[in-house]
Amino acid sequence: MIKAGIVGGTGYTGVELLRILALHPEVEVSVVTSRSDAGSRVDATYPSLRGLVDVCFSKPELSVLAECDVVFFATPNGTAMRMAPELLEQGVKVIDLSADFRIKNPSLWEKWYGEPHLCPNLIEEAVYGLPEINREEVKSARLLANPGCYPTATQLGFLPLVEEGLISLDGLIADVKSGVSGAGRSAQVSTLMSETGESFKAYAAQGHRHLPEVVQGLEAVAGKKVGMTFVPHLLPMIRGIHATLYAKLVGNPSDLQELYEERFKDDYFVDILPAGSHPDTGDVRGSNRCQISVLCPQGGDTVVVLSVIDNLVKGAAGQAVQNMNLMFGFEETVGLKTVALYP
Amino acid sequence: MIKAGIVGGTGYTGVELLRILALHPEVEVSVVTSRSDAGSRVDATYPSLRGLVDVCFSKPELSVLAECDVVFFATPNGTAMRMAPELLEQGVKVIDLSADFRIKNPSLWEKWYGEPHLCPNLIEEAVYGLPEINREEVKSARLLANPGCYPTATQLGFLPLVEEGLISLDGLIADVKSGVSGAGRSAQVSTLMSETGESFKAYAAQGHRHLPEVVQGLEAVAGKKVGMTFVPHLLPMIRGIHATLYAKLVGNPSDLQELYEERFKDDYFVDILPAGSHPDTGDVRGSNRCQISVLCPQGGDTVVVLSVIDNLVKGAAGQAVQNMNLMFGFEETVGLKTVALYP
Amino acid sequence: MIKAGIVGGTGYTGVELLRILALHPEVEVSVVTSRSDAGSRVDATYPSLRGLVDVCFSKPELSVLAECDVVFFATPNGTAMRMAPELLEQGVKVIDLSADFRIKNPSLWEKWYGEPHLCPNLIEEAVYGLPEINREEVKSARLLANPGCYPTATQLGFLPLVEEGLISLDGLIADVKSGVSGAGRSAQVSTLMSETGESFKAYAAQGHRHLPEVVQGLEAVAGKKVGMTFVPHLLPMIRGIHATLYAKLVGNPSDLQELYEERFKDDYFVDILPAGSHPDTGDVRGSNRCQISVLCPQGGDTVVVLSVIDNLVKGAAGQAVQNMNLMFGFEETVGLKTVALYP
Amino acid sequence: MIKAGIVGGTGYTGVELLRILALHPEVEVSVVTSRSDAGSRVDATYPSLRGLVDVCFSKPELSVLAECDVVFFATPNGTAMRMAPELLEQGVKVIDLSADFRIKNPSLWEKWYGEPHLCPNLIEEAVYGLPEINREEVKSARLLANPGCYPTATQLGFLPLVEEGLISLDGLIADVKSGVSGAGRSAQVSTLMSETGESFKAYAAQGHRHLPEVVQGLEAVAGKKVGMTFVPHLLPMIRGIHATLYAKLVGNPSDLQELYEERFKDDYFVDILPAGSHPDTGDVRGSNRCQISVLCPQGGDTVVVLSVIDNLVKGAAGQAVQNMNLMFGFEETVGLKTVALYP
Repeated sequence: MIKAGIVGGTGYTGVELLRILALHPEVEVSVVTSRSDAGSRVDATYPSLRGLVDVCFSKPELSVLAECDVVFFATPNGTAMRMAPELLEQGVKVIDLSADFRIKNPSLWEKWYGEPHLCPNLIEEAVYGLPEINREEVKSARLLANPGCYPTATQLGFLPLVEEGLISLDGLIADVKSGVSGAGRSAQVSTLMSETGESFKAYAAQGHRHLPEVVQGLEAVAGKKVGMTFVPHLLPMIRGIHATLYAKLVGNPSDLQELYEERFKDDYFVDILPAGSHPDTGDVRGSNRCQISVLCPQGGDTVVVLSVIDNLVKGAAGQAVQNMNLMFGFEETVGLKTVALYP
Repeated sequence: MIKAGIVGGTGYTGVELLRILALHPEVEVSVVTSRSDAGSRVDATYPSLRGLVDVCFSKPELSVLAECDVVFFATPNGTAMRMAPELLEQGVKVIDLSADFRIKNPSLWEKWYGEPHLCPNLIEEAVYGLPEINREEVKSARLLANPGCYPTATQLGFLPLVEEGLISLDGLIADVKSGVSGAGRSAQVSTLMSETGESFKAYAAQGHRHLPEVVQGLEAVAGKKVGMTFVPHLLPMIRGIHATLYAKLVGNPSDLQELYEERFKDDYFVDILPAGSHPDTGDVRGSNRCQISVLCPQGGDTVVVLSVIDNLVKGAAGQAVQNMNLMFGFEETVGLKTVALYP
Repeated sequence: MIKAGIVGGTGYTGVELLRILALHPEVEVSVVTSRSDAGSRVDATYPSLRGLVDVCFSKPELSVLAECDVVFFATPNGTAMRMAPELLEQGVKVIDLSADFRIKNPSLWEKWYGEPHLCPNLIEEAVYGLPEINREEVKSARLLANPGCYPTATQLGFLPLVEEGLISLDGLIADVKSGVSGAGRSAQVSTLMSETGESFKAYAAQGHRHLPEVVQGLEAVAGKKVGMTFVPHLLPMIRGIHATLYAKLVGNPSDLQELYEERFKDDYFVDILPAGSHPDTGDVRGSNRCQISVLCPQGGDTVVVLSVIDNLVKGAAGQAVQNMNLMFGFEETVGLKTVALYP
Repeated sequence: MIKAGIVGGTGYTGVELLRILALHPEVEVSVVTSRSDAGSRVDATYPSLRGLVDVCFSKPELSVLAECDVVFFATPNGTAMRMAPELLEQGVKVIDLSADFRIKNPSLWEKWYGEPHLCPNLIEEAVYGLPEINREEVKSARLLANPGCYPTATQLGFLPLVEEGLISLDGLIADVKSGVSGAGRSAQVSTLMSETGESFKAYAAQGHRHLPEVVQGLEAVAGKKVGMTFVPHLLPMIRGIHATLYAKLVGNPSDLQELYEERFKDDYFVDILPAGSHPDTGDVRGSNRCQISVLCPQGGDTVVVLSVIDNLVKGAAGQAVQNMNLMFGFEETVGLKTVALYP
């Protein structure tokens, strides 16, 4: 039984961590911080947790957090890089669900996140936690950078094609769609039900922060430059990401279906659907699974990959727990063997 | 480890049983029947179950079902009463999620369900499975009538008031609202997304089949006649029931909040919210919990009870598993200790 | 052609006024105020109005507004009572869509709205604008108090029964449900899509500001005290109100269907559906119509009225334009003869 | 005043025609056919039309339809080609909202629609009714093939780029998303609220019937072969199409924003948003408008076009009325100058 702390417990990734960890047999959540709600019971804010989480929100204090074995940052960008160094020094493992340690190039980070990075020395050490790519590194990580939601769905979808060198890397297209929970639990007009219900639109088409993260990940795999157009859209629903990925085939792939099935046969949380399927976000709602289909429409040379996850689970809190399991030597799937909530 | 069969596995209550039983440590689902999909894999119809349910749909055959320890009927009304007698005879326990054994008076059943009852002799034996009312009888049941969704939310909401004789029984009002999954997974225009999304309306206001079921349940508790107006409505969402219940107080109740907390203090699946709360269907989504608030607006003599459940869980499959646990001597909560999927 | 000003043009009732007035043949909208967006084009905030509204938001200034023939207040409560007196003095007609002039008793207003009323002398003059009740008074109004959304649906639903003395007035129940646009376009967590989508709950069950407004209206009609329990709920959709109304019949009503049809036969915007119908908010979406059904379930003595409107149209901006038409001697229906947007 | 008939009045495009024509000053709808509902009032099926459409559904009979000036086919594919020849012979103009006359190559039609075409001689005469491309031909059409919903949004989006030869034509990508009303008002499991609400998925990714229609249209403009990957998706909402279009720029476009604004400056129903905008389906809901943005993310050579319409209006019934206006010499915008229903 390890002790876990959550910094930033009032957002959706925070409460999702609590949902998962409340039933995790190896973890006790001992600290949940929130500046705004400090002192009040967690289950007063989240009645879904009544009887399952017996903790009050507290102000984030390093001395208290340092008593944990692991601390999750479910905070806006810029918080983890301020607190992680001291926690690591005190022997606490850190899993950052924000973007502070995802980008390896500090000046690229600064460009997209708008402020200088405060601990560039830790960036290198940080392990990017997509276990389907680098499970072994995750196991020995002290500081884990948990991937973004779009980057998870997009990288897993492109992965076999990039690894095998089957596609032209300079014109990738990722048309990605997310439920509104990805925008977080902050009061803003743009994600009101009246604005986002019964409506659909693209946003940040000129450039989204997840683009450099995806490109970095695929370039690491390819060992070459990657050029990608990445257009995110906002879905009139709460949970779910659907990545529709397009690339030009080069060379002569024998059987894409077999390639994908083989590539992920040892990855419990990636499920390649039968040929001809269309993955549905509703079939992974609440689960840590990524479901993928791959096809070449009309037998042409454009390959299309359809990749779905629940943005709060495999795209955030679930993947963080998967990484935690690996970091602490637990079974990778413990606490995560749930069935998606369909319908 | 017991063997379970599900008759009618292609509807929403069927797949919800599979979702819950797939992770139940004491149950193996060995038979899932479906006339229309016989021969095809269950997880081809329901990709959410891939890797978790390794069964094909089969035609319903008594000889095969008779090898189970328990058979669930997740069928339209009229099927269970045709198959239950022989299964019972062969020593199989039967849990009927349809309405065939809920109404004790056969002619009342015939009036509301439109055909004569085929085994009226079994009606008397059937135990109405609302464990919060009759847990002990459930434990020894062979044939269990699993309550309807509205009746579960409504009876639990009124229960303490009726038991204590605190309300006038001749003018109860139940204004109840359900997500569309309650209408099932059959092809009909009225529950298309285009018809039910972004819309709200009442239906069956002249008389709904759940009315006699609720009245029978409350009369059994009260030992007196109950008069109720029951108006169901269709919500533009998938899962969830909200019952808003109104009654006139008689006598002099000291503290309704305390009364409710005390009444359900030993019922794991009924959670009385703090005074002043408004239960939200989103906080019980996917869980077997009923959350309830009670209040007297402006200190008047009209008591209002707000009661929410997930219609597919506590209102159907979850409650059926809760009953099964009791019938087989398992811990009541096994397989049902999940956290609601919020947001 | 009259000149209209809108104070508070960035909220949903403001933009709905613009939607309706943009095509009104007798009105030119010359001023739209917004403190926050002053200087920017209205159609930059609301692209739906591009090419139809050629105005910039301006700061609210009395001298500019005084050049209008009519000024609509689509503001939070408390603004209209600060600006209306001077506008009236300068000969401008005022239509207040907020609650400032709805409650006739200033101390009751203060109790529910939390501050003293600033121009109690104007309250008496203000005409409560429900034309189906007091069309003649509306025609000569200088200062019009536009009804709330719930009060419109609720009063129209109860009206024939109260006028004819057919129901017991001390135990009325109004179980009302609203789409989230009723909560306005302000940044708040409680109306985020992630909070309100796929969820349903009651709110303000202990007492909602629309209760005294409804009671005042019905008491004026009845000439007697009215006792009402009023429980509002939040629907997972954008537009629409559904009032489900319950009362005990007294005396001996001959034919409720005929009574309702007769009562509203000269009211273009109230439509009594055929007996046995269930009005659907989707059938009045975007229109100024109220559709109503009345029934006595199982032939008992509880009468149930189902009343639906679009909260932003008949419940706010549409009714305001209907009142404006009457106040300026236009045909009552001009600019409002639209067809609901179904599906 | 012309007389219009609608064949297939019970589907969503049928009722949408009625919604628009009910207020059209130049048209009287005299016949609405429906095999299933013949004899019953139209407004009994569609209460939104009460008081506005005073017609009963009738069986489709050529002799009755022949008395109309124009007949709209809002039918499944395969009906119009059976009835159009005789109507045309009798001097009735025909506007077909189905796909019967969209594809110029009969064998291509047969391949995608699964049966031989019954009047290939009429295909050539039929005018494809996208007025922004061929307004003059529409004006003189006897037989009008009204474009599909996806093809409208997609062709309008690509049009200026193709006309100017600015993009490589062999690798176009159309990632298109539609609300469920596009699937029609027929009883099917796949478009139930429980299946499509809170979910998102692609469908027909291997090949959708709208692909050959789009390709034919763009090839006609380009005078060259076009290669396109076309992936449709189903949105958890009712109305709206969003096309996200990708192409490689060739040559050296000076200013795409100006190009688009200039191209559509005389097209009332196409609105180019300011640079940097993201069109939202909610801003065209219920209107006949197409709103478009064009951009090159990160200044690269991939151009992205975002194009939104309401699938039932500009994507079906609205465009049909726009075509009718042109065919009968009415003002193009008459009956269609409405404001989108936001929010």
